[in-house]
Amino acid sequence: MTLSNDQRVALIQLLGARLSERQADRDHHAGTEAHHDPAPPDAVAWPETTEEVAAIMRVCNAHQIAVIPHGAGSSLEGNTSALRGGLCIDLSRMDRILDVRPDDLDCTVEAGVTREALNTHLRDTGLFFPIDPGANATLGGMAATRASGTNAVRYGTMRENVLNLTVVTPEGEIMRTARRARKSSAGYDLTHLFVGSEGTLGVITEVTLKLYGRPEAVRAAICTFPSPDAACQTAIAAIQVGLPLARVEYLDEGCIRAVNAFSHLNEVEADTLFIEFHGSEAGVKEQVDMFKDIAEMNGSANFRWAERAEERNSLWRARHSAYTATVNQRAGCRGWATDVCVPLSALPDCIDHAKGLLRDCPVPASIMGHVGDGNFHVVFSVDPAAKAELDIVAKINEAMVAKSLSCDGTCTGEHGVGTGKRKYMQDEHGPALTLMHRIKGALDPVGIMNPDKVLPPLKKAAA
Amino acid sequence: MTLSNDQRVALIQLLGARLSERQADRDHHAGTEAHHDPAPPDAVAWPETTEEVAAIMRVCNAHQIAVIPHGAGSSLEGNTSALRGGLCIDLSRMDRILDVRPDDLDCTVEAGVTREALNTHLRDTGLFFPIDPGANATLGGMAATRASGTNAVRYGTMRENVLNLTVVTPEGEIMRTARRARKSSAGYDLTHLFVGSEGTLGVITEVTLKLYGRPEAVRAAICTFPSPDAACQTAIAAIQVGLPLARVEYLDEGCIRAVNAFSHLNEVEADTLFIEFHGSEAGVKEQVDMFKDIAEMNGSANFRWAERAEERNSLWRARHSAYTATVNQRAGCRGWATDVCVPLSALPDCIDHAKGLLRDCPVPASIMGHVGDGNFHVVFSVDPAAKAELDIVAKINEAMVAKSLSCDGTCTGEHGVGTGKRKYMQDEHGPALTLMHRIKGALDPVGIMNPDKVLPPLKKAAA
Repeated sequence: MTLSNDQRVALIQLLGARLSERQADRDHHAGTEAHHDPAPPDAVAWPETTEEVAAIMRVCNAHQIAVIPHGAGSSLEGNTSALRGGLCIDLSRMDRILDVRPDDLDCTVEAGVTREALNTHLRDTGLFFPIDPGANATLGGMAATRASGTNAVRYGTMRENVLNLTVVTPEGEIMRTARRARKSSAGYDLTHLFVGSEGTLGVITEVTLKLYGRPEAVRAAICTFPSPDAACQTAIAAIQVGLPLARVEYLDEGCIRAVNAFSHLNEVEADTLFIEFHGSEAGVKEQVDMFKDIAEMNGSANFRWAERAEERNSLWRARHSAYTATVNQRAGCRGWATDVCVPLSALPDCIDHAKGLLRDCPVPASIMGHVGDGNFHVVFSVDPAAKAELDIVAKINEAMVAKSLSCDGTCTGEHGVGTGKRKYMQDEHGPALTLMHRIKGALDPVGIMNPDKVLPPLKKAAA
Repeated sequence: MTLSNDQRVALIQLLGARLSERQADRDHHAGTEAHHDPAPPDAVAWPETTEEVAAIMRVCNAHQIAVIPHGAGSSLEGNTSALRGGLCIDLSRMDRILDVRPDDLDCTVEAGVTREALNTHLRDTGLFFPIDPGANATLGGMAATRASGTNAVRYGTMRENVLNLTVVTPEGEIMRTARRARKSSAGYDLTHLFVGSEGTLGVITEVTLKLYGRPEAVRAAICTFPSPDAACQTAIAAIQVGLPLARVEYLDEGCIRAVNAFSHLNEVEADTLFIEFHGSEAGVKEQVDMFKDIAEMNGSANFRWAERAEERNSLWRARHSAYTATVNQRAGCRGWATDVCVPLSALPDCIDHAKGLLRDCPVPASIMGHVGDGNFHVVFSVDPAAKAELDIVAKINEAMVAKSLSCDGTCTGEHGVGTGKRKYMQDEHGPALTLMHRIKGALDPVGIMNPDKVLPPLKKAAA
């Protein structure tokens, strides 16, 4: 599918030079952050206001042009690839921070604001926005993907932190999903319907987010364990006794090895937890003591504190480099990240199962996880041209998903569905998939919003 | 509308004696907890399993019988009245606690289990379910109404505490809205769509809930203030500095007077905060000291601790009696509770505005509020037969809603929409109301689920 002359004219009238059909721009928006095949759109638009997005949607609706909303392009499941061509709406120029309300602990930003830009802006307010998926994603993209990351265990995911959204419907109508009150029981929860909808129901153009006061005290630590199980049991026990950990991240031996090589560090190459505590001075001290007791009972030996902010930042930079460090173990390769999330009690068994699957894996692989949430990733370094190894990794992913579903877990804790996880939706949701199709049909009747994403075709026709 | 012979036969075949058309049973399910006009169903069914609910729905779908799901009947906005007759599905016999999983801090219960029954069952596990709307509502009803109450400020509302639901669709299909993992980004958020849908999209038959470890230390206190503003500013400042208050409840002078009379207490009749702290011994002590400082800066004089569990329980019994105490100030009267919720910074102004509206109010009225969430109620004692006073209260309610909406607040923080708040949905949601109608049309195409609730007719035909 390419744009017809009529379609092109209509869009150029609207956007002028902020519409591009250049190959470089199209390739840059082909959804290729991970191992997925590139699928470039026919054109890319850079709107600057919600009203402009609405005008674009009215043209696309009238001409039945497929539309793919695009933030930073950092999603990992082909979420923004243009499988049927069409128009990519790149929201990166909608990067204004519209309002910060310290008294209400919230803010409203345009969808193209990145989480780092927001936190830089908040620097002098004593507030911060905690959700941290690693990549410097846009807040609109994070909402659309229901993203989370290292400190969801304390602050929740985007699901828990979006107060309302401004969305543009496929027909080009502008609406707000909710008011700014912290609680409401006024009708259907449209906010949560759009959070995680991955651009398949409309375009998110503004996001109102909860903010948090910077904790008085922050303490981070690293400690190693004799086994993956010992590390997991430590995290689980800490959650079960109610320790309000801000972060509790597991990295396996191979992951630490990759991080050491990539970041020129010298961490002990063993099953490791990275932990962070937030609170008052006294509260953090109390948490630390309790956590240390639990870790020692599980055989942890070398507990190391990162007392100063620089040490702490260096520790978290190392954690955040884990994906790239793993992928970069082979030149010219790309990442493939699994993303299961299971009830906490099933986590050690699922990690053990994954370890078993990796035993004969021919490509470098690291395990890293937000273990306080029951969520972990295996990251592989794959050659996208080597079909044989892609097949092997695909089979491991499939086995991990099957294991997760058998434990009442999900195939995707925080990366979304995109194209990569579509094939698991039927097994994960069963008959509920029919309801999702009905909702899609009701909100995007022409079917132009990010087509062929999230929902697989129903096995039989929808009722 | 009454049941036809065919309809009656089909339902009796299914339910036998668990179907009743007796006037007493119908009147008992007429949705009259508050001031709303009774609207009894034609019949009441008491299913005992999800499969039985599905069978009932298939009959009702085939015969186009209106269906009203019913929990404890404690909702306040006519949420369960049978405006078009039809069949009330009373879920109170579905009262099994199906599974408690201490390791995962969650449980699964049938929809008819009450919150008190669940907490009694959990007594020996060290766990509890915090959401506490006052009434001993069913957990299915609380999910359907997106209920909350006194400790939402710490633990969130039903929105934050339901992990998944089993629902029966209008066509009689059984499905689960999500898996049990704490996080997921696998498609549309059906759980949150059904939470707060008030039985208009399907019947909730099972609820999986988050549980929490009982805090090591619990401390409650009561303190009075020279003005409503001083009390509010204290609560707001405590939230802004990040104090993890478990409860912070405002009661105005008139409310304390009513509680004193009703519960034979002797509290100082002044603007008052009831507060509760949860945490470790040291953590609670720290919170208490900080809170006391903030309260004293706002002019609070008499701070009184309820150290022992009995004192604490008596304090919260007094708080929970506030609704009944207010209503009972006049014999034969019923309650009418407003329920606005606004961004925190707007709360003092909104309470001041409400106080102004109450100045010439001819019926007893109390203000009580979950002020840490920006949510408060004016409770009136009204004579349902006295049209003139109902009109006055209706006007006050309308003015409070208008004020709340002008502050980006909601007309209903936790009571739901039912019939009472339907008329405000257009003003609150604007064009987003169209999306809600589309969702309703997609999930309940025949329109049998709790008809004429939540969504008002659209001003123009839905697109």
